[in-house]
Amino acid sequence: MKEIAGGVCAPKGFRAGGIWCGIKAASKKRDLALIYSEKPCTAAAVFTTNQVKAASVLVSQKHLAYGRLRAIIANSGNANACTGAAGLATAEKMTELAADLFALSPREVAVASTGVIGVPLPIAAIENSIEALGNSLRNDEAGHSAALEAIMTTDTRKKDAALEITLGDKPVRLGAMVKGSGMIHINMATMLGFITTDAAISRDLLDKALRRAVSKSLNRVTVDGDTSTNDTLIIMASGEAGNPVISKEGAEFELFADALTSLCVKLARALARDGEGATKLLSVSVSGAVDEPKAEKLAMAVASSSLVKAAVFGADANWGRVLCAMGYSGAAFNPNAVDISFASKAGEVKVCEAGEYHSFSEEDAKKILLEDEIEIRINAGSGPGEATAWGCDLTYDYVKINGDYRS
Amino acid sequence: MKEIAGGVCAPKGFRAGGIWCGIKAASKKRDLALIYSEKPCTAAAVFTTNQVKAASVLVSQKHLAYGRLRAIIANSGNANACTGAAGLATAEKMTELAADLFALSPREVAVASTGVIGVPLPIAAIENSIEALGNSLRNDEAGHSAALEAIMTTDTRKKDAALEITLGDKPVRLGAMVKGSGMIHINMATMLGFITTDAAISRDLLDKALRRAVSKSLNRVTVDGDTSTNDTLIIMASGEAGNPVISKEGAEFELFADALTSLCVKLARALARDGEGATKLLSVSVSGAVDEPKAEKLAMAVASSSLVKAAVFGADANWGRVLCAMGYSGAAFNPNAVDISFASKAGEVKVCEAGEYHSFSEEDAKKILLEDEIEIRINAGSGPGEATAWGCDLTYDYVKINGDYRS
Repeated sequence: MKEIAGGVCAPKGFRAGGIWCGIKAASKKRDLALIYSEKPCTAAAVFTTNQVKAASVLVSQKHLAYGRLRAIIANSGNANACTGAAGLATAEKMTELAADLFALSPREVAVASTGVIGVPLPIAAIENSIEALGNSLRNDEAGHSAALEAIMTTDTRKKDAALEITLGDKPVRLGAMVKGSGMIHINMATMLGFITTDAAISRDLLDKALRRAVSKSLNRVTVDGDTSTNDTLIIMASGEAGNPVISKEGAEFELFADALTSLCVKLARALARDGEGATKLLSVSVSGAVDEPKAEKLAMAVASSSLVKAAVFGADANWGRVLCAMGYSGAAFNPNAVDISFASKAGEVKVCEAGEYHSFSEEDAKKILLEDEIEIRINAGSGPGEATAWGCDLTYDYVKINGDYRS
Repeated sequence: MKEIAGGVCAPKGFRAGGIWCGIKAASKKRDLALIYSEKPCTAAAVFTTNQVKAASVLVSQKHLAYGRLRAIIANSGNANACTGAAGLATAEKMTELAADLFALSPREVAVASTGVIGVPLPIAAIENSIEALGNSLRNDEAGHSAALEAIMTTDTRKKDAALEITLGDKPVRLGAMVKGSGMIHINMATMLGFITTDAAISRDLLDKALRRAVSKSLNRVTVDGDTSTNDTLIIMASGEAGNPVISKEGAEFELFADALTSLCVKLARALARDGEGATKLLSVSVSGAVDEPKAEKLAMAVASSSLVKAAVFGADANWGRVLCAMGYSGAAFNPNAVDISFASKAGEVKVCEAGEYHSFSEEDAKKILLEDEIEIRINAGSGPGEATAWGCDLTYDYVKINGDYRS
């Protein structure tokens, strides 16, 4: 498995582009993106679990039911959520406009939106710019990059990844882009993610690999505990790599699924690091839980705790808050068997042993916690379960960004 | 029902006091409190649901099992949590020291602690000052006030209340003090609360009244979603009012239970308003939910949302975040039937009708949201369920206070 460049344009057969069409009226930043496959793709997706779903999510869920895609159209600056019947018609229209560019059926197009909730999406702006969007497509890093810019909102950096593996002597590539920075929590809140691959794989196994990958990566990211109306993660597989089609479980499937999980972990870490106002990436690694689901609950509770996040921001080795968050996680464990360490590239310091204070140097702890990648290592002492969750610190800037988002 | 002065010393037969014994070594603020009843009391209590329980909680739970109390000893500056067997011995010792002052059995004394977790509590400081603590007892507002000061940590104001009702022609009084400001969430996280009453009431009905009151008040307060190791709410009933003993449900019991609920709602609002760094009290009133438990879930999800709280801080009428939080609350409702208004003493503005944007003046909304008591009124349009939850805004100061709590 090796890292490569090119993002969603790295796999064979994909083009991408992004333009400004006028939805972001004030900033004039790119706000409309398109990803297009020259060949029909098998496709799979996961969507928000929020009961309040954006129009784009409802339309994409309907189209994904066919399991085949050729294109994804996406906009930023407006979530097209809480917009009623008119919003649904707008989302449908977006898929029709993209389909018309390539003489496709609208159901071969998925749609995604992100931005402010409850404001009608100005479809005329998209309609007027659809030709320009089609003309912006490129099969290189620049095309990927323009599309990625066009789905960003409060993101402060581009988040993407691409990998190459070998399946049946053929190089197989996976590429991805993701946006999201606030409202990120379990089940991928306000994340838009698009993954392309030239692997040949059946729809069922593509779906299985995606769900496995997400369960160990993007569903273990938390920024502020809010879960959005718009979360969408879509994967398209073109089959252009020419590998023997993966149509049953086995070694080839495992290789592909592992690569997809690695790709999604990279996205998860990038999302956590770019949490709104974040200055630090926080990884919470739990071992010794009763089982993996309990390990995940423990890790997520610690990574989500406002008090832990504020302590990480302040480089304060306040391990009692870690144990406290474990205590209300809902996952059973033995509080008297817990060990906790703080670690970073500056070293590791054990702060709690068997549920009690373990003597440590405050100076060493401070040095470790001042780094920009912090790991909290927990051994729950209660079983074989392991899981890692990713989050970030809670900072003044989080409050500033979200105090007046709409203006 | 009328408001009266005097706090926990308002009911007949109670004395209270508070001193500095040296736990708060740097600030030299009061850190040791005692509440004492001249007569044996029936008693009831609720404690944290966190799996990690402070030593004081474990000891008080054991003593409360007898249902009779004469005194409560409490300290601030140290939570005596995650302190192992030594911590348990320290908590037991605190009850023994208080019992010795009045020739009581230690099991007639409850103990509570609040402050930093994982640091041994310096019991010698308490031992050396126990006589002074006994001598500090007074049966007036000053005694109440000194005891209240001695349980405060990051609290910025004193939170107390007292009420008088009439039962069987006798005036019956209830008085209360509460501390808590960070780590306040459902199930009363890091709250210490002590309630006294001179009502004559059986232990079972006192317990029932307390649980009913808490379920509609203190369990609906949220500041930051963290649930502490130390939550303790204790009520002592001396019977000194001379009313006919309330020993069965009926009109007298309902009068008492309503008064206790009113008292606890006052405490709940005071806790929310004094959330760490808070500048505004946020009330979220839900009607039209399927039932009361679902109304509570919806109200708590909105009051707990970091994005809603940051918007309230920024006086931003971002109602999409309200609907979004309802969507991930776990309580089912019809998103297309929801109405939302923002209200304060400056007026009320409807911002969402039937799940979509309802035309409103941003200027009016700003004026309403700049007040220091904000209400979000939600009609979920799905049934008869009603509930109110209380919270506060998320501010720069929350981050500042919690970024380096231990130093």
